[in-house]
This record gives sequence, C-alpha cells and structure tokens, in this order.
Amino acid sequence: MVMMLMKATAIANSNIALVKYWGKRNSDLILPYNSSVSMTLNNLNTKTTVEFNKTLSEYEVTINRKVAKGEELARVANHLELLQNSSPHKIFAKVRSESNFPKKAGLASSASGFAALTLAGTKALGQDLTVKNLSILARRGSGSASRSILGGFVEWTKGSLPDGLDSHALQIKKEAHWPELSMIVTIISTEEKKVSSRAGMSQTVKNSPFYSAWLDTIESDVEKMKQAISEKDFIQLGKIAELNAIKMHATMQTTTPPFIYWEAGSLSIMKEVLKLREEGIECYFTMDAGPQVKILCQQKDIETIKSRVTEINLVKDIIICHPGKEARLTEDHLF
Amino acid sequence: MVMMLMKATAIANSNIALVKYWGKRNSDLILPYNSSVSMTLNNLNTKTTVEFNKTLSEYEVTINRKVAKGEELARVANHLELLQNSSPHKIFAKVRSESNFPKKAGLASSASGFAALTLAGTKALGQDLTVKNLSILARRGSGSASRSILGGFVEWTKGSLPDGLDSHALQIKKEAHWPELSMIVTIISTEEKKVSSRAGMSQTVKNSPFYSAWLDTIESDVEKMKQAISEKDFIQLGKIAELNAIKMHATMQTTTPPFIYWEAGSLSIMKEVLKLREEGIECYFTMDAGPQVKILCQQKDIETIKSRVTEINLVKDIIICHPGKEARLTEDHLF
Repeated sequence: MVMMLMKATAIANSNIALVKYWGKRNSDLILPYNSSVSMTLNNLNTKTTVEFNKTLSEYEVTINRKVAKGEELARVANHLELLQNSSPHKIFAKVRSESNFPKKAGLASSASGFAALTLAGTKALGQDLTVKNLSILARRGSGSASRSILGGFVEWTKGSLPDGLDSHALQIKKEAHWPELSMIVTIISTEEKKVSSRAGMSQTVKNSPFYSAWLDTIESDVEKMKQAISEKDFIQLGKIAELNAIKMHATMQTTTPPFIYWEAGSLSIMKEVLKLREEGIECYFTMDAGPQVKILCQQKDIETIKSRVTEINLVKDIIICHPGKEARLTEDHLF
Repeated sequence: MVMMLMKATAIANSNIALVKYWGKRNSDLILPYNSSVSMTLNNLNTKTTVEFNKTLSEYEVTINRKVAKGEELARVANHLELLQNSSPHKIFAKVRSESNFPKKAGLASSASGFAALTLAGTKALGQDLTVKNLSILARRGSGSASRSILGGFVEWTKGSLPDGLDSHALQIKKEAHWPELSMIVTIISTEEKKVSSRAGMSQTVKNSPFYSAWLDTIESDVEKMKQAISEKDFIQLGKIAELNAIKMHATMQTTTPPFIYWEAGSLSIMKEVLKLREEGIECYFTMDAGPQVKILCQQKDIETIKSRVTEINLVKDIIICHPGKEARLTEDHLF
C-alpha cells in the first residue's frame, strides 16, 4: 500500500477592515449582516502546516508553539472536518501554526490563521479550489478569514443566499495598485481580550440600541470606500475608515453590560492622530476588537507619525504595514 | 430722589444629568429635543451677586475673580437684558460670580452659574418669580440651568409649545428622599474644553448617524429613571445612567470630525468602575461634556471606591457629592 503524503503549508496575511464586519445574521455559516472592505497587510502573517495522517487518533494542534486545547482546538478540528466534508472517512491531522504577531489582541489573528489553515488543509487533502471557494470555506472558520485569501484591497460581499455561497471575498485592487498606502500598527497591549469578537458581536446585535442605525450606514460606506481605493483618494479613505471604526465601537460600548476595547493608551494615540491632522499631517485611525490602534497614512508621513507616536509611553511596539499578498502555498514546512 | 438698592445674591448648586440633555430643537429659546433627569449636587455650587445700578455705563462682570470679556461677558449681559424684558428702560449691572469648582470642564458650571444669576438678577430687579418661571428664565441662559433652580432629583420636561413655556424643571423627589445616594466626582483635567457643549450639541444634531437612534431611547430612559428614583432602586438608577451617558458620548464620537471628551484618565476610571462591579461593589459611571468621570454609588461604598480611584495616578482631585438643595438667596454678598 502506498502512503500518500497528505501535507501542505500555507502563509496568509492578516487583514484589517476599513469598513468593518460586526454581527452575524447566521452564526453557523458565519454570514454577516453587512458587506465589509479590508486591506491585506504584508507584515502580519500566519504560516500553517497541516498533515493528515491515518495513523493519528486525534487532532494534534500547536499554535505559536503551544498545544491547543479546549475551544481553540475544537475550532481548528471543526474546520478540518469541514474541509473533509465530501470524504466518507474523516482523517485526523497534525497542525502547526505560527503567527509573527500576538493573537486575540485585535490584530485579526483568526483571519490569517483560518485563511492559512483552509489553504494548507485543502491542499493537503489534494483539493484544488478556486479563490471563491477557498474564501467561502475560510469564512466558515472565521468571518474575516474570507478576506485574507486575497491580497491588496478586498470586499467581502454579505450575499443573500441562505447557504452563503454568495458571501465571499472579491478583490477590489491588487496590492501593487497603491503600495504607498501605509498602516502603522501600534501595540498597546498583547493581553488576550476579555470579550472575544464572537461574543462581542452577538451581544451587540442583541442589545445595542444603535445596531440598526449602524447597519443603515454601511452600504454607503462600502461604496465610498471602494471608490476611494480605486481613485487612490487617501483623505476620503481615511475619513470613511475612521468614522466607520468609531461607529462600530459605539455600538459595542452601548451594549449592556458595555464593553470597551479602548484602553488609556488607545485613546492617547487616537487623540494624537486628531492632533496631527490639525497640524496638517493627514492620518486617520481605525480600531478593531482590541486595544491596538492602526494609523492609516501615506508613505511620506510614516517617519513623522512614528516619532510622535513613539513618544507616547503606553505604546509597546510599532509595526509598519503596506498592502500585502494573497494567501499562498510554500514548501517551507513547519515540521 | 430715593436710591433703591437693586442688589441680591444667590447660591445655586450644579447638577449632573442621569438622563442627559443633548441637542436643541430651538437654539434661541434653548428648547431641547428630549426631556432629561438630573441630581442637584450639594458640594458643587456657584454664588452670584448682581447689582443693577443706573450710574453704570456697561455691564461689569467678574467670574472667579477674572473680568469676563467677549462671548462670556455677552452671555451674561444678554441674560440680564432678558430678565429686564418687561422694563422700558434697561439698566446695567455689576456681577460677581464664584464657583467652588472649575468651569467649562464638564462640571455644569453654566448650570449653577445661570441658575444663580437668574435668581439673584430677578430678585435685584424686585421681581418675585415662581420656581417654574425662574426655571424657564434660567433655561434661556443655559439649558441645564433650568434644573439647578430645584433641589434633589429633577426632571426637565422638553415641552412642546413653541414659546417654551412648558419646558422647565419639575421636582421628582426632594434631596431628603435619598441622602445616601452619592456621586464621587473625579477630576481628570481642569483645562477648559476645546469643544463647548453648545458647539458639540449642534454638530451632533447635524451629523451624527446615531442621533435619531439616541433620541428614540430617551423617553423610556426618563420614565425608568423616575421610577428608580421614586423606588430608591440604586442598581436600576446606575444602569440607566451609565448606558445613557455612553449613548450620548457615542453620538458625539460619531460626528464628523469626531469629538472625544474622554481622556486616558477617564477611560482608566470607567474601566475601574466596571472592574469594581465585577467584584460585587455596585457603582456606575456617568460623564458629561468634559473628561471628568462621576461615579454613582451608595454611601456605604464611598470609602472603598475612593481608595481604588485614588490609586489611578491620572486622578487630580475627588469631590464627594450628595443630593443638594435648590437655588436660594443669601445675605452674604460678594461685594
């Protein structure tokens, strides 16, 4: 009997939404209430090796050199089961995954993680999927992972079909379209967040008095953002992204009990960004489900902004990103 | 000719809204879009002496020992003209006003200021007005001043008449109803705010995408708050007040450009309050158009909360308040 090597490795970049995804209309299939737009980031990535092996009696998952357990293990295992949906006999797998940035801290580690897992997993199973189908599968692991399958600037269409087959990523522009666009990711805290994005979204949809007002504004934000990207209109992009992020946080903060991802350090940076803008330096902030602040700016202003932000003593680290590549296979396996 | 002494002095306490007023449907008459509920605070007050004098050739106004000029002087002068509306000949006045707390820092100095000015001014003119009419006049100086005319727990009814004669304060309960209710006012910064409440409200009404969603929730907040006060239900009072405050700030933060009254120190205290609650100590925060955080708690928990808040090094000062008295006259003149 021939032992086929069912192993593959993929790298996927994280992505940060410029028009946010917040709230699921279907939690099982991870279908969103609204479309979203993101930028795939070149310097934040996850590399994942998956090896299916008939001799294994359980899933063995290591994330950032720590053995995954409990819910974390279950999410990966469920995803690998999903990738084998068409197979009559499920096989267990060994997975090793490493990110070059902290997880569960609002840097979309589940986006790059599930994008890499989907690509490596399907390849290891000998499947050769279209980008659209990879994006749909990645979405089932983590909503924002659907976007990390593609590079550059990406729209995740909310879709309308009950089975979710029209809810996937579409590329707006490739990364080479606007390489000068920059994101200064400031790290305020690398502690794992207390309220997960999943729990947060669900609570927001359930009880924020502003949730439907938020949704009412999104389709217009998506259209304007796509236009800003196509026209490389930085100010328009920044304005929409910043207001969109604040709106999302406003919906979270008005849930009962309130959850506030902003930390003292986040607020200091947000205010510094507003101040820089008053001084004529065009930059805007965006924030996700975590305390880190991501500053959108143009290549020419990176050094000025970086030096100003570094002066804020609550900033632990700074990562400069530009539009990054799509998820891709590599022969550089982790084991 | 007999020289009548047209001089009077009044003291008015500040008040902090538990259900906020944010937005004017008529800026000239200062008529609000929504009703609001407040607590008059015993330890924050303004004392004002007004003397009308036919020998004066202009208004002479001193606020906290500084001569008032520009817009500040104009607001006081306009108010004194308004008080003399029925007189055929306007007289100038000398005014001295002193608050025991910083002004324009989100501690409702204009509430206690215009309440004291209205009471002292009308008395100096020999008028003897009802509480309702005093409240209506005070409102014309500053919306929240309408509430500082009364003590204890106060509703400011939005009214519906175009002339505003049904938009004034009503007492829900006297201060003696619930003396154990406490407010720990934490001072984060005494700098005057960059965006005045007036400008902030106007911008919010104009362009926050959440403004109408905010208004939709208010009448219910007012009703529940009145019930919580009547029943001395602290938890209910705290919950509604906290969420109401966050909702108001969410409407401001989502204007273009965003304005964020929260400072790093404010956020640290807000989070400490949430943490204390997780530990079983019932306390809630509220915030106004400034960085100070006001913690609602019960008498028995003051010391515990105070010691925890004092540890936060961004806190500059702490003032403990309880429900306070109505605006009143005093013979203790400032000149």
